[in-house]
Amino acid sequence: MFNLHAQLAKDCETIGDYPLCRLLLMNDRQFPWLILVPRKAQISEVYQLSVEDQQQLQRESCKVSAAIAEHFNADKINVAALGNVVPQLHIHHIVRYKHDPVWPKPVWGMLPSVAYEEDERKKCLAELRLLFSAEDFSPL
Amino acid sequence: MFNLHAQLAKDCETIGDYPLCRLLLMNDRQFPWLILVPRKAQISEVYQLSVEDQQQLQRESCKVSAAIAEHFNADKINVAALGNVVPQLHIHHIVRYKHDPVWPKPVWGMLPSVAYEEDERKKCLAELRLLFSAEDFSPL
Repeated sequence: MFNLHAQLAKDCETIGDYPLCRLLLMNDRQFPWLILVPRKAQISEVYQLSVEDQQQLQRESCKVSAAIAEHFNADKINVAALGNVVPQLHIHHIVRYKHDPVWPKPVWGMLPSVAYEEDERKKCLAELRLLFSAEDFSPL
Repeated sequence: MFNLHAQLAKDCETIGDYPLCRLLLMNDRQFPWLILVPRKAQISEVYQLSVEDQQQLQRESCKVSAAIAEHFNADKINVAALGNVVPQLHIHHIVRYKHDPVWPKPVWGMLPSVAYEEDERKKCLAELRLLFSAEDFSPL
């Protein structure tokens, strides 16, 4: 039985579901920052998924990376499964720019997050649900 | 034509080759820290690999993560493709402990690296070449 970790639920908005993962938007307007969370209980490492799910995760991760790289005209995508604080497996996909406030450092723990304004958040979510609209994606 | 990026060559020792990736040991005795580098030219993002290579990368990444998690009795494995400094695609696999010097923060940029002593480095490389010995792995 999958339940989104309380910290992820608090920090993020839900964009929708791929066959394996829930796709979240981190509520931090400083970076376009998406997170994939496999909807499986008790998994904290990629290798703990079934081989089929490992491969599906890679497909979903590459779709997300390619889509946001193009849409946001990224200089780089940072992809990472860390989980030192939130043990539920979740994979960060962060758009980076050479002019962003912490480039070239990784973003984690560098700056306090800055929440989207209400209108901006709604607009961003609508835009992302459109960006990811595809047969295998269910907006939520 | 694949050439290992000069910065990776400087910072790391080579353990061996999987079918897709070269496996490196970061020369930093503070963390068991391995890096997979797909032996492909001009690739900086996972999604730029062919679909077959994306899937092979996931297989190799899971093998590395599972092996070092068990061998080093890790509390967590941090897996990340960043590339803000070194553009050649490379995927970090870092053993983390709740008692390590920067837990729970990510390791990048937190501490100056501490090179292995010569004997320790040789021993560590021999140990890792043994750990990864398998039909699909060629020690180098």
